[in-house]
Amino acid sequence: MRVLVIGGDGYCGWATALHLSERGHEVGILDSLVRRYWDVTLGVDTLTPIAPIAKRINRWKELTGKHMDLFIGDINDYTFLLDAIKKFAPDAIVHFGEQRSAPFSMIDREHAVMTQVTNIVGTLNILYAIHEHCPDCHLIKLGTMGEYGTPNIDIEEGYITIQHNGREDRLPYPKQPGSFYHLSKVHDSHNIQFACRIWGVRATDLNQGVVYGVLTEETGRDEMLINRLDYDGVFGTAINRFCVQAAIGHPITVYGTGGQTRGFLDIRDTVRCIEITLNNPAAAGEFRVFNQFTERFNVLDLANMVKCAGDKAGLKVEIQHLTNPRVEKEEHYYNAKNTQLRDLGLEPHCLSDSLISSLLDYAVRYKDRIDTTEIMPRVTWK
Amino acid sequence: MRVLVIGGDGYCGWATALHLSERGHEVGILDSLVRRYWDVTLGVDTLTPIAPIAKRINRWKELTGKHMDLFIGDINDYTFLLDAIKKFAPDAIVHFGEQRSAPFSMIDREHAVMTQVTNIVGTLNILYAIHEHCPDCHLIKLGTMGEYGTPNIDIEEGYITIQHNGREDRLPYPKQPGSFYHLSKVHDSHNIQFACRIWGVRATDLNQGVVYGVLTEETGRDEMLINRLDYDGVFGTAINRFCVQAAIGHPITVYGTGGQTRGFLDIRDTVRCIEITLNNPAAAGEFRVFNQFTERFNVLDLANMVKCAGDKAGLKVEIQHLTNPRVEKEEHYYNAKNTQLRDLGLEPHCLSDSLISSLLDYAVRYKDRIDTTEIMPRVTWK
Repeated sequence: MRVLVIGGDGYCGWATALHLSERGHEVGILDSLVRRYWDVTLGVDTLTPIAPIAKRINRWKELTGKHMDLFIGDINDYTFLLDAIKKFAPDAIVHFGEQRSAPFSMIDREHAVMTQVTNIVGTLNILYAIHEHCPDCHLIKLGTMGEYGTPNIDIEEGYITIQHNGREDRLPYPKQPGSFYHLSKVHDSHNIQFACRIWGVRATDLNQGVVYGVLTEETGRDEMLINRLDYDGVFGTAINRFCVQAAIGHPITVYGTGGQTRGFLDIRDTVRCIEITLNNPAAAGEFRVFNQFTERFNVLDLANMVKCAGDKAGLKVEIQHLTNPRVEKEEHYYNAKNTQLRDLGLEPHCLSDSLISSLLDYAVRYKDRIDTTEIMPRVTWK
Repeated sequence: MRVLVIGGDGYCGWATALHLSERGHEVGILDSLVRRYWDVTLGVDTLTPIAPIAKRINRWKELTGKHMDLFIGDINDYTFLLDAIKKFAPDAIVHFGEQRSAPFSMIDREHAVMTQVTNIVGTLNILYAIHEHCPDCHLIKLGTMGEYGTPNIDIEEGYITIQHNGREDRLPYPKQPGSFYHLSKVHDSHNIQFACRIWGVRATDLNQGVVYGVLTEETGRDEMLINRLDYDGVFGTAINRFCVQAAIGHPITVYGTGGQTRGFLDIRDTVRCIEITLNNPAAAGEFRVFNQFTERFNVLDLANMVKCAGDKAGLKVEIQHLTNPRVEKEEHYYNAKNTQLRDLGLEPHCLSDSLISSLLDYAVRYKDRIDTTEIMPRVTWK
């Protein structure tokens, strides 16, 4: 299939592009590269030294003989987007091309507005482009498990059947997102569902959990293909961030009690989930929702796992409870379903000591690149 | 109370501003006047000749001695908004200042994007301004009954208690809006609810039905205070549009079978609902939702009522079923609750023959201003 990966220079996007190329799909990468610019504006950087996009793509071709088209530009620019789509003629679009950090969206009003406008307009543009120029194209859109928040009932996959006053309907699952970023994904979901209903667009919304790990089979093949790994207080996420902290002797920063439970998955499962979704497209007019995570953990348990692995490796690891910069429940019920991707063939990589050890090794290897002043959270929700 | 009415030059906003001023509140009007410009770009106009905003306000002062501050500018411009809020120091903000037409939002991609960006950014700016400069200010935000769509279960007011797998939670009512405009209101609702949760903002979301009528006690006092009345295919809504059609011998345009059921209210109840909400503010941190309509009708029933009143008045009224330009269910369950405003004291003006007759009279009176080429729907959802 011809697959356009929007946001293909990012953490999940790059790994996905290579994985799909390796599996024989014709892959195009579309990216504005603005994520690299945001790093510059915040004064942060990936732990791992990532190569420029053109060099990454060239190296992939040298190693595998596989070509990937590259479109550099902003999907908020409809003329550019349309031009790329007409040239590439995708059978499927994988849309990672959004501002994806909750703290970034909470920096101030400008960042909140920018996050919502960028994400919403980008997705609206893709919907119009599909409707007007490739109506059969399957949109695979990255959502987030954070759209659901932490309700006191089981979290289903996108929809819930509600009995009420003697009647019944299957309705969109109620959303209680926890940041202006997470809200933007909820807005996207509503917009996409509407486009499916009125135009017959086929779409799958992947409500992804927190991704960890840095290596996939493809990105591990060569130093030039290395994937980004964020550890800073804005873009760094649990596990990856904890491992970097442990590796350099910085206390592991747990926000509040650490009782917050979330869904997690290995980046090797992210790329596999996208592949599975691609191979099993939504029907015309269908707005399909999969919850894309493999395991649930609470944050303190994760910190303890990293501490344990670190101690074994001879590192001296401390856990530090910080005043929670976010507004979120620290003790809550959490039971989210994730059977649909499993039913389609996903075999999860569960979080293991060896994965944590390999992340610790990575962090030790690139220790000199770490800026310890960027580790603590600087953005608060209040 | 000091009440800033954003969108105070519009159909509901103008009537509300006068009503609150009459009741002794200190009223400020903030409006970009862009609605008048959209009329120009579409080549449509209100049936009634509305005076420029400054003249309207002056006339009100001449008649009543009551002053209203005027701020002309765009709430998407945060500097302007902040300046107005600092100067006016509102106890409450009534927010009508959004693009409010479903067909307008469906014209093309540009109108869809513009509607969502304008509405979302405007509301985000208001939330930040309240948070940063008047945290105790009560936000009274106009939503729409169209946020709910037409689920097969009863529609509650904003929230629904769900029993699921042996557990229970009260969650935001699932939304299935029917246009990019209606979607923008759903996005607003999610954003406001989040701001209430994290910042302690007090807000009431008024999910309003379709408003009809043109006169309120205040706008009826003088020709110079006359309110707008839209009959065109983009901004005209049922009842008002039907009456204008009947008055000039144009067939009443029913979309599809006319089995679509919606909530409706008289504009005299709109202004009263706002007053009631103002006098009973939400608690700090509360995101309160009222369904603001008084009666339910299906579109064909309304058309028949107008035909009946028109026939009595000696007009020859025809009903024409058009191919539905929208994508919506034409036969569906619809049972929406609306008890909260009643419990706070709303005494509804029910739709009556005399109201319809007065609308017909209005339409006959301003017959010469009608452009019959603007009546048919020109925007389709497909």
